[in-house]
Amino acid sequence: MENNIEIYGIHAILEAIASETNIEKVWLLKGNRGTLFQRLEQSLRENNIPHSYVPKERLERFKNKNNQGAVANISKIKFVEIENLIENGFKNSESPTFILLDGITDARNVGAILRTCAATGVNGLIIPQTGSAPINDATIKTSAGGAFKVPISRVSHLKDAVYLLQSHKAQIIAVSEKSDDNLFDLKIKKASAIILGSEDKGIQKGLIKICDTSVKLPMEKDIDSLNVSVACGVVLYEKIRQHNK
Amino acid sequence: MENNIEIYGIHAILEAIASETNIEKVWLLKGNRGTLFQRLEQSLRENNIPHSYVPKERLERFKNKNNQGAVANISKIKFVEIENLIENGFKNSESPTFILLDGITDARNVGAILRTCAATGVNGLIIPQTGSAPINDATIKTSAGGAFKVPISRVSHLKDAVYLLQSHKAQIIAVSEKSDDNLFDLKIKKASAIILGSEDKGIQKGLIKICDTSVKLPMEKDIDSLNVSVACGVVLYEKIRQHNK
Repeated sequence: MENNIEIYGIHAILEAIASETNIEKVWLLKGNRGTLFQRLEQSLRENNIPHSYVPKERLERFKNKNNQGAVANISKIKFVEIENLIENGFKNSESPTFILLDGITDARNVGAILRTCAATGVNGLIIPQTGSAPINDATIKTSAGGAFKVPISRVSHLKDAVYLLQSHKAQIIAVSEKSDDNLFDLKIKKASAIILGSEDKGIQKGLIKICDTSVKLPMEKDIDSLNVSVACGVVLYEKIRQHNK
Repeated sequence: MENNIEIYGIHAILEAIASETNIEKVWLLKGNRGTLFQRLEQSLRENNIPHSYVPKERLERFKNKNNQGAVANISKIKFVEIENLIENGFKNSESPTFILLDGITDARNVGAILRTCAATGVNGLIIPQTGSAPINDATIKTSAGGAFKVPISRVSHLKDAVYLLQSHKAQIIAVSEKSDDNLFDLKIKKASAIILGSEDKGIQKGLIKICDTSVKLPMEKDIDSLNVSVACGVVLYEKIRQHNK
């Protein structure tokens, strides 16, 4: 875990939260009580930090056994508040582009997507707090540096990110093989966000519903889908072709 | 090695060659002599089958020790003669498309490329006998079935494949980040072959020289390159956009 640091103990984790360190995840001892422990729980909830309750045996697998029933994984990646990510995107680019990933669990796919995002100047990657691949060593390695170049936000619900982007007048494009419309018939607006779903489940229905449009990549009849990082690259380059050619 | 079968002994391998089985590779005992062994060597050379000479200890690592100094790895993938692959491509498609990979050693990248080839109806993948990722289990898995749908040829030299394609009037496109020309300014011809190189070395100079054109994908300044399977997808979909839209 070259790219991650573990910190141990309730105090240390509370301090890390206070100093806005990028906490990837926290493991808490199941059944733990005490005022300080409850303060930590509250702080984790308030700051939207992923955490789970585990038995003693799980905590003992960490290097430092003296952990007061709390271990945090600190990421080298600096996560950004969704509001800042979107505002900066609109400030820094004439054609701000955002990528939203719904349920992509393969770390290498997320890495390949981050690499393409960096190459094409995407202004931000938005992923859900849960049900998404962690931004771990495999992600960072596959991203070839992209993980440090592309701002990343984690949100509780992707829907909220969509509403926020729509309030900025960004066009929301769902990429779904179930769509009847061809990507190459779509006029991609200057400000746009592209949503990609997992290869098995696709994008959740409730999310597709609130998108402005949904498109598919044309494909041979007997083929289900492309690798999600390839699909992402094709859509991003189609936007570049339309705007920066 | 679910997708590979090993066969043992000189007779069995000679029979496999005679029945046009897809031999991935043959290991031969270094210093072996004998008429039958020499017949096998000649047959391997004549049929362009990759083989290498190894010490006794290497051969003893195979399941069956009674191997007469010869072990072959049979692939489930059916490799196709380059002439047949090209001729069938022109026969079966109005806009025949071929992909040539120069020195791509990551099996998962080759798999992702095969998956995109299947989705976009590519007529053949052409790889060199040596210095390329084997079409192994990881390739087959990542290809999501593509490895069985896309005809694959192995050639001694990619140059020969290029000359053969040019004799069929196919446009040969090298994808190279060193090119000054933008992919989106290129008119892709109906019959075309796309060459992609390894991420570290790119396409060998001698090969780029004989191509009809070389193009790059537009990229942010501080970024070196894209994942090769993503680059492949973008070029293939640009061809689809231009011709099948």
